[in-house]
Amino acid sequence: MLEIDEFTTMVKDIYRIGALESHLSWDHQTQMPAKGAAARAEMMAWLGREHHRRLVAPRMGELLDSLENQELTPDDGANVREMRRTYDLATKLSEDHVSHFSKACSEAFVVWQQARQDANLDSFIPHLEKLVTLTKEKIAMLGVKTTPYDVLLDEYEVGMTVADYDPLFARIRARLVPLLQRIRESDVVIPSLPAGVTFTEKDQLLFCRKVVEKMGFDLDAGRIDKAAHPFCSGLWPGDTRFTTRFDEKDPFSCLYAVMHEAGHGLYEQGLDSNFAFTPRGNAISLGVHESQSRFWENQIGRTESFWKVARPWFNEIFPGVEALDEEQLNLLTNEVKADFIRVEADEITYNLHIMLRYEIEKMIFNDGLSVDKIEETWNRLFYEWFGIEVPSPDLGCIQDVHWAYGAFGYFPTYTLGNMYAAQFTEKMVESTGSIDEVVVSNDWSKMKDWLTENVHRHGSLYRPADLLFSATGKAPNPEPFLKYIEEKFTRLYQLN
Amino acid sequence: MLEIDEFTTMVKDIYRIGALESHLSWDHQTQMPAKGAAARAEMMAWLGREHHRRLVAPRMGELLDSLENQELTPDDGANVREMRRTYDLATKLSEDHVSHFSKACSEAFVVWQQARQDANLDSFIPHLEKLVTLTKEKIAMLGVKTTPYDVLLDEYEVGMTVADYDPLFARIRARLVPLLQRIRESDVVIPSLPAGVTFTEKDQLLFCRKVVEKMGFDLDAGRIDKAAHPFCSGLWPGDTRFTTRFDEKDPFSCLYAVMHEAGHGLYEQGLDSNFAFTPRGNAISLGVHESQSRFWENQIGRTESFWKVARPWFNEIFPGVEALDEEQLNLLTNEVKADFIRVEADEITYNLHIMLRYEIEKMIFNDGLSVDKIEETWNRLFYEWFGIEVPSPDLGCIQDVHWAYGAFGYFPTYTLGNMYAAQFTEKMVESTGSIDEVVVSNDWSKMKDWLTENVHRHGSLYRPADLLFSATGKAPNPEPFLKYIEEKFTRLYQLN
Repeated sequence: MLEIDEFTTMVKDIYRIGALESHLSWDHQTQMPAKGAAARAEMMAWLGREHHRRLVAPRMGELLDSLENQELTPDDGANVREMRRTYDLATKLSEDHVSHFSKACSEAFVVWQQARQDANLDSFIPHLEKLVTLTKEKIAMLGVKTTPYDVLLDEYEVGMTVADYDPLFARIRARLVPLLQRIRESDVVIPSLPAGVTFTEKDQLLFCRKVVEKMGFDLDAGRIDKAAHPFCSGLWPGDTRFTTRFDEKDPFSCLYAVMHEAGHGLYEQGLDSNFAFTPRGNAISLGVHESQSRFWENQIGRTESFWKVARPWFNEIFPGVEALDEEQLNLLTNEVKADFIRVEADEITYNLHIMLRYEIEKMIFNDGLSVDKIEETWNRLFYEWFGIEVPSPDLGCIQDVHWAYGAFGYFPTYTLGNMYAAQFTEKMVESTGSIDEVVVSNDWSKMKDWLTENVHRHGSLYRPADLLFSATGKAPNPEPFLKYIEEKFTRLYQLN
Repeated sequence: MLEIDEFTTMVKDIYRIGALESHLSWDHQTQMPAKGAAARAEMMAWLGREHHRRLVAPRMGELLDSLENQELTPDDGANVREMRRTYDLATKLSEDHVSHFSKACSEAFVVWQQARQDANLDSFIPHLEKLVTLTKEKIAMLGVKTTPYDVLLDEYEVGMTVADYDPLFARIRARLVPLLQRIRESDVVIPSLPAGVTFTEKDQLLFCRKVVEKMGFDLDAGRIDKAAHPFCSGLWPGDTRFTTRFDEKDPFSCLYAVMHEAGHGLYEQGLDSNFAFTPRGNAISLGVHESQSRFWENQIGRTESFWKVARPWFNEIFPGVEALDEEQLNLLTNEVKADFIRVEADEITYNLHIMLRYEIEKMIFNDGLSVDKIEETWNRLFYEWFGIEVPSPDLGCIQDVHWAYGAFGYFPTYTLGNMYAAQFTEKMVESTGSIDEVVVSNDWSKMKDWLTENVHRHGSLYRPADLLFSATGKAPNPEPFLKYIEEKFTRLYQLN
């Protein structure tokens, strides 16, 4: 057998096991009966070992060494490049480390849930300390390039370092903070939903399915289910499943969760199935994935044009909200407000939430900030940037699950997503015409098709920065995002 | 590592893959979006190869050879005994044969579906011929003992041969045929459901959940879903899932499917989780499994006592059926009628349907009945036994899926299930008192507990005949079943 064929067979086996893990994880969060948890955990651990064993097989190392010196097609080359990265990450960490880290995360997660519920940080501190210590060990094993935090950043968005994020975030902050200040001084009144209307789960799902079909998500090749947290799982060709949650007092929470996850879902459905079960046939990065979800959630869903199309459905399905016109629905779903919780934040403050976490993580790993100083540092920065005092840690430094999973370096990819989305859109409108016109034209396929053609179908052929260049002709840059945000909110809040 | 530990580790890996196959199969029938079918088939084929590769590993053969000559605990001994059987079945068949057979089944299944729908046998004949030829090859590879058909019978219920079934079935038939004749001559009028009542899926599920909880099926360790065909999947400890179907004009179809599948589910939930992912922790046979489903479906569910308990729920959930009292509900759900379709048959004719299939299969494999003679043979026997003419093959020899799956020798296990169930009950009442009294006492746990103690928890520790002996003190025999049937229907149809 040719080495490339042997390699591809091994890679597919690894990815198939990964797909089974995703499927069981989806099932865990949507279907599993409570008492199935213990055997499920054992099954997941077994699949994890099978996955790891095949990934770190000496033969995989030999094949990578050899294939890196051969002429390969761009597709095969992408697979070799991505598997090298995964292989190195897996083999540089000792088995002991992986097992300790995994155990520490399991323990930390349970304590974190309770700590957040109790709004008391104390019990979580020793767990966070342990995870930080283990993460520093991990950094040492993986090998520091310029700064320690860079090792973590690169893990979540390949190629990105502090030297990239620092000037990028400074530039974004310099434009968003004054904009936020002007919005606060605006006289525009944000309308509310009429009191007493109940939005049943069934009706919300009906409404959301109409939106999702309009977006072009193929419900014959996917599912929508209810789960505690919205997520999307692209299992394999023809089967992309996402979840949402319901609030019977507020239909927008579900709507934007659905548009967000369906955006992820369109990326998964747009991948090239000829390369199924290999990196080439899978999404390239968290940042690019987030650009797809944010595009549909914010740039489409939170516009007056969207409400021009969706309001008739909205009024038909939910009697009692007719008094709100498109303009008011648009204002209502775009309220900007300095508040504590990241996942509920508007498009402006969201990025400030991210940057705050970035600064704290950078201090932890590059500047030796001790874990017991995280809360006061967080609260001080939060007051400086948001102008409000954090009353308790559940509204502050322990609101997110990421650290309890040991995921340091993950947050910045959310802002990259917003930035990439605006850059794609700037280019897209050259072919499709203005987004507003496309949305009201009622044929949304132009947008989906452009994204599939320029982003989705490439999978991991290009790394993120190269994909941006290939799609837009420019290196990744925040200007389109800043321009989009400033124009949108200047108009909405009548800031001229 | 001790050989027994190495062996157990290998067995658990094989069973874990089997459990993943079951889980994907459940998902296929309940959740999978239509366009996921192709990738799903590929994933199943891959798991099948992984399963087979580990099963036929030379090391497995070495370990079996060695462990068969060691002193083992009864639990380990059962695992070695069952794995020897599975290993021999897997290794005696050539890879080519397995692959041809699997392909022939896939092709036959699609044609069978169409043929049944069209009520036209012609297109299916060549496929059935191919499957019969391949099955004859299989018999040769596995090695004929006494008669060729015995090889198939043993595969589905270990230890059973034509020499066992022939006298057994003759004895059952000799008692059921005259009973059926007397019922036909009875004046008892079977009531009907009032016209115009709609039984919604939601309400049927509500009613069935009450019944299932009463049976003792733990819904925190299982699920009920909708599927085209009812089935039960015991995935692993704490997770047993079964399905049902709904007919909005007839609530009994769903009710008895649910009681049947929940009976299978109780067996799965009663297995000893200390032996999870090994034969010792899994059900022993199709016949024993069917005994558990039939017990709850027929011996509990189709009784006046059951309706004494369930009628208040029935009336509360379905307004408009109050005119039917317990006695009438019991008659209605026990109607005996010579008719064409096995899966809709009553407790008496059901076994005649089975015996007919047994006779035909025996003729094919032992007496050289050619495939093109199956239909006329079927129709002739059917007329002899049921007194009615088969009008078309969809109501005759192609009504069942089994042959399209290449499953010859499977049918007789259904009648074994009926027979075992009655034998277990005869013994059970010595501890619990009469079934009718237990049912109306409203505490059904005595029945579940007896079955768990005497049947479920043993898993595959004993082979079927030994399990029957261990539980009842007697070899398997049809007398308790015949006695049960004669008493029940003599009373119902006032035959005295």
